Parts: sequence; structure tokens; C-alpha cells
Amino acid sequence: MSVAIQPDLALAASLFEGLSQKTRRGRGIVRDSYGAGEQAAHDLARSTATAIGLEIEIDAIGNLLMTLRGRDRGAPRIIIGSHLDSVPQGGNYDGAAGVVAGLCVLSALRGAQLVPRWDLSVMAIRAEESAWFDVPYLGSAGAFGLLDPGCLATPRSDNGRSLEATMREQGFDPEPIRERRRLLDPSRIRAYLELHIEQGPTLVAEGLPAAVVSGIRGCKRFRNARCLGEYAHSGAVDRRYRHDSVAATVAFLHHMETTWLRQEESGADLVLTAGELYTDPALHGPSKIAGETHFVLDLRSLSDATMDAVATEARAAAARISAAYRVDIDLGPTSDSPPAVMDSRLRARLMSLLERPFEMASGAGHDAAVFAKLGIPSGMIFVRNQNGSHNADEAMSLDDFAVGARALLALLMDFPL
Amino acid sequence: MSVAIQPDLALAASLFEGLSQKTRRGRGIVRDSYGAGEQAAHDLARSTATAIGLEIEIDAIGNLLMTLRGRDRGAPRIIIGSHLDSVPQGGNYDGAAGVVAGLCVLSALRGAQLVPRWDLSVMAIRAEESAWFDVPYLGSAGAFGLLDPGCLATPRSDNGRSLEATMREQGFDPEPIRERRRLLDPSRIRAYLELHIEQGPTLVAEGLPAAVVSGIRGCKRFRNARCLGEYAHSGAVDRRYRHDSVAATVAFLHHMETTWLRQEESGADLVLTAGELYTDPALHGPSKIAGETHFVLDLRSLSDATMDAVATEARAAAARISAAYRVDIDLGPTSDSPPAVMDSRLRARLMSLLERPFEMASGAGHDAAVFAKLGIPSGMIFVRNQNGSHNADEAMSLDDFAVGARALLALLMDFPL
Repeated sequence: MSVAIQPDLALAASLFEGLSQKTRRGRGIVRDSYGAGEQAAHDLARSTATAIGLEIEIDAIGNLLMTLRGRDRGAPRIIIGSHLDSVPQGGNYDGAAGVVAGLCVLSALRGAQLVPRWDLSVMAIRAEESAWFDVPYLGSAGAFGLLDPGCLATPRSDNGRSLEATMREQGFDPEPIRERRRLLDPSRIRAYLELHIEQGPTLVAEGLPAAVVSGIRGCKRFRNARCLGEYAHSGAVDRRYRHDSVAATVAFLHHMETTWLRQEESGADLVLTAGELYTDPALHGPSKIAGETHFVLDLRSLSDATMDAVATEARAAAARISAAYRVDIDLGPTSDSPPAVMDSRLRARLMSLLERPFEMASGAGHDAAVFAKLGIPSGMIFVRNQNGSHNADEAMSLDDFAVGARALLALLMDFPL
Repeated sequence: MSVAIQPDLALAASLFEGLSQKTRRGRGIVRDSYGAGEQAAHDLARSTATAIGLEIEIDAIGNLLMTLRGRDRGAPRIIIGSHLDSVPQGGNYDGAAGVVAGLCVLSALRGAQLVPRWDLSVMAIRAEESAWFDVPYLGSAGAFGLLDPGCLATPRSDNGRSLEATMREQGFDPEPIRERRRLLDPSRIRAYLELHIEQGPTLVAEGLPAAVVSGIRGCKRFRNARCLGEYAHSGAVDRRYRHDSVAATVAFLHHMETTWLRQEESGADLVLTAGELYTDPALHGPSKIAGETHFVLDLRSLSDATMDAVATEARAAAARISAAYRVDIDLGPTSDSPPAVMDSRLRARLMSLLERPFEMASGAGHDAAVFAKLGIPSGMIFVRNQNGSHNADEAMSLDDFAVGARALLALLMDFPL
């Protein structure tokens, strides 16, 4: 296949407009996972796919597969996926851009009457955001039987209804989750491709419309770190007699920043964040030395080895600084999520398809991580987006979207695997 | 006068026991400023002083003066003072030890039938603690007409009654405060002496029973410092694009600690504390870069010049680090309380009276600061105390108290001015 066809951008524009009209609530977008907002988006995708002439499947837990039939229907298919839910008062593009990209690419192939070698399915995945049920990747992980069945009891954050009750109300079946039953067979998936808006500022800063994603960073998080010292009068205790939890925490976090800089200099991929840090409002005071601080230390990297090395350094530094400051820095356990590296051949092919090739890590999680961790060759494209994501001000231009969609279409037209 | 007389330690023991019995509530001591607890302590002091044969005066705002008449009643007198109130659930010694010391010294002089050259007055000062009315030194500052009359509207922290109403209920007259009227004439006070427990750990650590106080540290406090950055996803934003308010605050406070170390090395008196530090619990999160921190920076020193220099350095560092971290560190205004240096001749004399002479700064404030700032020669003795002050576990031994009281008595027996 080498005809110069283009993604159906008129369809993309119409879909983005339709999604905005159906799911805007005040300033922001509300496509609640397994709720009315997400369902409205699924309904629009389904009717569009039907009009294009795609085959429709809906699995037991509500994932929608819209397939352009291939010549060899027995061969493993390619899935072009993303999610259609949003956070409360989110934007119109996080998630939806990937489904729209799939549909406007399949619409172009269909319009050109091209029949692919194998099935190409756009998958509108359910409930990727953890904002509603505090569990990410419900749709994709659920499709592979990977969810802890206990998640069915999780209450929806706004109305308290359990995931199970909510699914049943929407006409879906939670039993496959309870039984850890696979609805999709990884061996029947040739590749997984996802286009997503970039959620950080990198492409805006670099002046680039799109990028190839090298991988999705893993996370090693000290969620409940704390430093115990002793409360005392700020004027009456000299430095050498203090057990100052703020001073020790500052020394520790400053050391971790120097560790980060050293890792960067050595070329390692790493971001390091203390996003929560607080003394106890019931006990602290302007004229008291603080006796306790709580903080979170969040490490993310494409490399497990880097995260392990930095966590080891953190524990050593906590011990050293505890002794030096006469306090007890207890980092506590980590919660760990491994990195998901994108397929090297898909990355290379996508890079060759960008006019200005640029590769970057994804710090946020995506459904692609679920597919990649199952060994399914996975590739991701980021599209430039202003103002970050998960807010009403997400802004992606259709021109930038077109750059990503063209790369996706070109990849499918001459698939390397 | 050079007879080897000793402070009346039996009286001291009896007074400490009586104070504890009358004002203990559960584990701790409650001598509420201008309340029943403080009044009980005043009643005990007054009846004791009457029994000793001292002359009693009570000023309009409730300060109690108990005077051993001198030979020259027209000459300026010496005041031996401290306060009798406590914080809620405080200890038995903070404040009271100074009044007890004065009484057991005057009891010894009276018992030896010694008539001093001038009046010696023990002053039981009202309401030194700011725990009840959020204004420190009500009694001593009020006696000199130094209070802002607006303080009369201050509500008591537990029951909300104004200071004015509370004073009137106890039979005192708030009018001198409203009129900024002096009840004591500084020119009629030869010297002010105060014995107080040490509120920090220094004497315990040094293994010393008592110390001479060099001065009461002033305080320069950035009460409402904050750092404004931008909230963002902790995984999706690389270091060079961050506006991380925690990272910037850590860098700032780390720089201030190095500034403190440099000041210490140069011999300056300084303590530096960030006792409150917090991200916003409504907006922070474990996977977010924090967009705002609030903190307090509290500087204390015997030297105004040192505090000014460190505050200047803090403002310069805030500007530098704001630029480097792409945030806005706004330290805000300072609240300032100048240091009060103790009289050099009284310090030297007291040092000569201690078997193991040791001089130290007081980080906490004391009524002595009010007298010293009026130009009244002032001297203070610290007595060793376990477990800090302002808590139920204050612990001062009568042996250590006796070391301080003996120095006080010896000073009075051969007064240098």
C-alpha cells in the first residue's frame, strides 16, 4: 500500500466537536468512567464507526472494538486504542484524541477502498482514569483479566456507588473481572498503537507538533515517608541540641535533588518529586521547632535499575541524615509500578515518519503500558498540547493532531512486523 | 552586709508544693492569666509575704509587689520579679520559680533582721504567657503603659471573653491600659532581677545547675512566607520545565541553614527555624508537582545587626532561587522584636557568684526584656530544668534552684550599683 491518502481530518474535527457538545459541563469535560459522560462518547464513536462501515464488538466490560476487516481474518490484528473517559472537569483531548485518530485513519483507508492484510481495530477503552474509581486502566487491564477482583467494591469518588453496581447499571457484566477472565487474547494482537496528547510542556517548549514515545516511566513511590524529631522552643534550643524534623527533611530532599542531578548528568532517565510535604497543623507553630514532617517521594524512570539505585541512595541518605540531625527519617515501603518500554522497531519506524523526529518518555501512565507489559509490541505518538492535561484548558490544534495521525496512517500502510 | 545567710529553702519547698496543690488540673498546671489559677497563685504569694512581714501593694492591673522596706525609702528600689501564670497544662516552675526565689531570699533577710539600704520588692507579674490572650507581657508592659489599648479586646483563647471583661470580673481596672498610663516609674527602679528555669536543654547537656543570662534574643520572623510555583504531573514534566514549589523551598531553606552555619563559625549568636512548612492539602497529591508551599522562617539573636544581615541574605537568596526554579518565593514582611541585653555589671557580678560560671542567651522572652528595654539595669539567672517548659513534665530540682537563689541573695547582699 503506498497511495498518498490522508487521515480523514473532517471526521476528526466533527468528532471533537461532537464530543465537546455532548460531554461539556460548564467549563470542563465530564466523561465519567462507566457513567453517562463516557457512554455518550462511546455512543458517538459507535455510530461513527457504523457509518464508516466498521464491524462493531462490545466486550462484557464495555470496551468497544471497531474493526476494518482485513484480508486474512485469521491473522492477529492491530489495535489502535485509547480511552474515552476523562477526569472531572477535564479537557476534550486526553484519551479521546487516540480514538478519534484511529477512526479518521480507518475512515481514510475505507474511503480509499483499501483492504488491509489483517484486521485493524480501533479500541475505545473504558475507564482509564483513576479519578472516578481510584483504580487506573480498568478497561484495558480488565480485558486481559489482570484486575484484582477486590476492585469491584471500589466506590465511585463522587456518589459512593461501587464499581460493580455502576457497571451493572450500565448493562455491563463484572463477572469476568471477578473470575480474572481474559476477554482479549494477547497472542491474537499483532501490535498496539496509541496516539495521546502530551500531558507535560515538552513539545510546546521544543516547538514540535508530535513525538515518538520511548516508553512509559515506571514509578517507585515512598508514599508515607516521615521524619520524627522533637518539638521545642525555636528560640531556646541551640543547633547542636535540636531534633528539628524540618531541617532534617530539607537536608534529605536537598540531597535527593543532587542525586537527581548526578543521574541526569550520567544520562539516566529520571524525575523526582516531593509533591506533599507538611508539618502537623495541630502541633506546629511559628515559634516551635517542628517535631514531625510527612512527605511523599515519587521517583519515575524508564529504567527499573535507575529507580532501584536512587531508592537505595535515598535509604542510605535517610540513615546518615537521621544520625546527623538526631531525628528518625522513616521512608516506609515503596509502591512500585514497572516501566513499560515501547517496541524498538515501532519506535524506529515512527521516528522515520516524523519530519522533525523527537523521542521522549511518558511520565504519565497510559493503556499502552498494559499491552506492552503483556509482551504485545506497542507504540505511542504524543501530540503537542497546551496547558497540561486533566483540566478544562487542554488545547491541541487540529494541525498538530494531523501530524500524529499521518504518522499513524503511514505506519499502518507499511507495517514493519 | 556579709553574714553567711542562706535562702529560705524550706519556704521555697512549701511554696512549690502549695502552688502545685492549688493549680494542678489533671497532669498539668493551669494558672490562667487573669483567671482563677493565676489568682490562686497570687493569693498564696500574698499570704506568704504578709506572714514574712513584707509590705503589700497591688497595682490597678493586678501586679503584686511584696516589699522588704529599706533604710532609705526615698531611694529607687530593686525589683525581683517573674510571672505566676502558666500555659494550659504547663509545669509548676515556669515563672513561679522567680517569685518563689524572691520570697525565699527576702524571708532569709527578714529572718536575719537585716534591713537593706533600699526597698527590695518581689513583683508577682500578671499574664506573661501569650497562651491565653495572644499578647505576651501583659502585666509588665501594662505596668509601664506600653500596651496597645487595642489588646483589651483580645478574646481569651478558651472562652472568648475579652481581656477587658476578664480583668473587670477579677476586680482589676483596664483604664491604665486604655490610657497608656504608667503604674511604675522606671526612674524609681534601681535594677530588675529575675530567676527563671531554662526552657531549653543546654544546662542539662552541660551538666550545670545554673547560668547567667547574657540577654534575651530578639526575633525577626517571616510569619507568612510562601513559594508559588505551578501544579503539574510529577511524571510528565522534566526538571527544566518545572515550577516546583517544594524543590525551591527546600533549596531556599538549605541555603539558610548554610547561612546559619557561617554565622555560627563567625561567632555570631543566632538560631534559625522553619517551624511550619506545608503544601496545600486541598491541592497537593502524591503524583503532582506542588504549586504552592507556605512556611515560617524565625530568626533569633542577641544582635539586631545579625538578624538584619541574615534577613537581607534571605531576601537575596529568595530572589536568586525564585529565578533558578522558575517560582516566586515571597517572604513577606517580618515581625520584629528587638533583643534585650542584660546589664554588663550585673552579668559580671552574677558570673563571679557561680561556682561554675556559665553564660548563655535566652531564646524565649521574659518580663526582664520589658524592664531592660526601658533602660533599667536587668539581670537574669537560669536554673537547670528537665524536659523543656510549657508542659506538664517540667522538672527543676530544689538543689539547682538553691544554686540560683544563693546567687540572687549574694548579689543583693553586696549590690554593685
